[in-house]
Amino acid sequence: MNRAAPLLALAAGATLLQGCVVAAVPVAAGAAIARERFMQGDHDADKPLPKPPAGALTYLGPVDGKAATGMVMVPPGMQYLYGSGEAAAASLQAYRALDTYLMARASDRSIGHQVKSVVLAPGATLDAPKFADCGEKPLAVVFDIDETAVLNLGFEADQAKRGGEYDQQRWLRWEQTGGGKVAPVPGVLDAVEIARQAGVKVVFNSNRAVENAAATAAMLKQAGFGEVAYGDTLWLANAGEHGKDRRRWAISQQYCVIAQVGDQLGDFTDLFNATTPDVAGRRAMASGKNVEWLWGLGWFLLPNPIYGSALKGSFNEVFPNDKQWTDPADAAPSPVPAPVSTTTNGSVN
Amino acid sequence: MNRAAPLLALAAGATLLQGCVVAAVPVAAGAAIARERFMQGDHDADKPLPKPPAGALTYLGPVDGKAATGMVMVPPGMQYLYGSGEAAAASLQAYRALDTYLMARASDRSIGHQVKSVVLAPGATLDAPKFADCGEKPLAVVFDIDETAVLNLGFEADQAKRGGEYDQQRWLRWEQTGGGKVAPVPGVLDAVEIARQAGVKVVFNSNRAVENAAATAAMLKQAGFGEVAYGDTLWLANAGEHGKDRRRWAISQQYCVIAQVGDQLGDFTDLFNATTPDVAGRRAMASGKNVEWLWGLGWFLLPNPIYGSALKGSFNEVFPNDKQWTDPADAAPSPVPAPVSTTTNGSVN
Repeated sequence: MNRAAPLLALAAGATLLQGCVVAAVPVAAGAAIARERFMQGDHDADKPLPKPPAGALTYLGPVDGKAATGMVMVPPGMQYLYGSGEAAAASLQAYRALDTYLMARASDRSIGHQVKSVVLAPGATLDAPKFADCGEKPLAVVFDIDETAVLNLGFEADQAKRGGEYDQQRWLRWEQTGGGKVAPVPGVLDAVEIARQAGVKVVFNSNRAVENAAATAAMLKQAGFGEVAYGDTLWLANAGEHGKDRRRWAISQQYCVIAQVGDQLGDFTDLFNATTPDVAGRRAMASGKNVEWLWGLGWFLLPNPIYGSALKGSFNEVFPNDKQWTDPADAAPSPVPAPVSTTTNGSVN
Repeated sequence: MNRAAPLLALAAGATLLQGCVVAAVPVAAGAAIARERFMQGDHDADKPLPKPPAGALTYLGPVDGKAATGMVMVPPGMQYLYGSGEAAAASLQAYRALDTYLMARASDRSIGHQVKSVVLAPGATLDAPKFADCGEKPLAVVFDIDETAVLNLGFEADQAKRGGEYDQQRWLRWEQTGGGKVAPVPGVLDAVEIARQAGVKVVFNSNRAVENAAATAAMLKQAGFGEVAYGDTLWLANAGEHGKDRRRWAISQQYCVIAQVGDQLGDFTDLFNATTPDVAGRRAMASGKNVEWLWGLGWFLLPNPIYGSALKGSFNEVFPNDKQWTDPADAAPSPVPAPVSTTTNGSVN
């Protein structure tokens, strides 16, 4: 998660640390970890987060909003996801793939062909994937909510203005009061319409808090998603709940889940987060031959470079050793040639 | 573009500016603009870039690389694109859509159905799109190179370590010497294989410099893309060249371009960048009903939140006015109730 403001603030301390920027790392990482834990359903932060030095934060707040917003630096991830045509195109592309897939699977079902669930069955592994049986259960598509179905513009605009750490309590207040300040992700409303026309139930499985179910349902309705019913088409997280598998297995009791849609790997199976693999290992799990075929064919992923489980990794975890490059302009200068010595007879050695 | 290190360095100056962070904006924006101009083919920066305050940059450099890299903060965009399973999944998903599309179009051609070009014809507009005629020209798919076909790990790792501004001359040295330090984008090599097996020519159209054609061809070969021939299957930018349309029209003289693949809107048509529309306008252009159907169906977009034309926008450009949210905890405190006055007869008003 790019939280530029605390990084700026911390540099006052960072410059005191000779030749390194380590002071800035824990806060940004801590904020990202806290946000991710929360969104994974871990509503209790079990590890204290490092705090920025006292007085270091520049709080812009809502005072004199106009002047302040003119000077707010928007983190690049937000420029990308909320501002760019590129992210709109990526989202439309993902949702077009979903549209085509839903229509094809609904058509299979209507002519009596078997359709398969894309929920990994209990006990399955990524090396040996097994999917839940569908039988004649009604078809469903399961969406995550945040940055999958809706863009949390109001919350993130506030976050961009205020900087500082991610605040779980503020997020809960956002769930309760932010209703009209979201926008649908490009392409999602057409996908929901196509699903419903094809007889595919639209279900939401989110780590938003169960206590805010009514507000979340109202938010979805206001954003154009129609009615949802908690426990049927809206599934939320209990306090301290880790992961979404329990809920997707519960959904699979009632429905044949032919597609899952999310912005983070945990929106597809908890197995991606189960054993806290190293960064490269997790990337390999998502690309492995037993599951890679699912991307765009049952598992549909929307971009989110702003927060979440994707934003992990130290330098050595993100950049492989064998891909290190040295700018030739930084190479050591050529050694000064040794002076030529002459012998007493004048010849050169 | 998230260039966290210069932001950190600049805070020393930023904290002197009461209540705002404006000092940090120009450098990050300037670096992003410079990078984008370069990648658009504008090899001459025609506008001087703001420089960080003297002495403010903490240069980690390649000295004592091991200790330095342990403390290098990786920008979240790089964590996302290079490290995460999410980005791998998004890339695999985009390339799966391409695979399916290429096979379908090649099949159409093989049974005598007409196939259409996805290159907008000269004079077409996004409101009135018209595509080049294909006739019987051999089929081709056109790929951008950077962060579409290859991940520039070596260059970006160096950039993460050194911080500072994007340096165009350094990029040119990277083109010349970085050959083995890239990795193919997840999914691309399978797509190239599928294209070739389906008889679809694989062509690269990149804003890398024409002077470095041999090095770029060698880099592609070493990364598994096979042989390319400059002027046939490899198209590069002349100095000062803006945009890619001239080249894609030249490619279309020889080939029926049935698919284009890129990470920025300019990889599809220069029209997205032609009139420097405002951020929201450009996003609307990409989502407009006359072109939105192309995403995933002829135009295939790979994620890139690290640099490029997607990383634009001030606060007010990225966040619409009507999506502003005030945290209830920030609301003005309730006014203190007026004291109750009593009349001389003791009753309460």
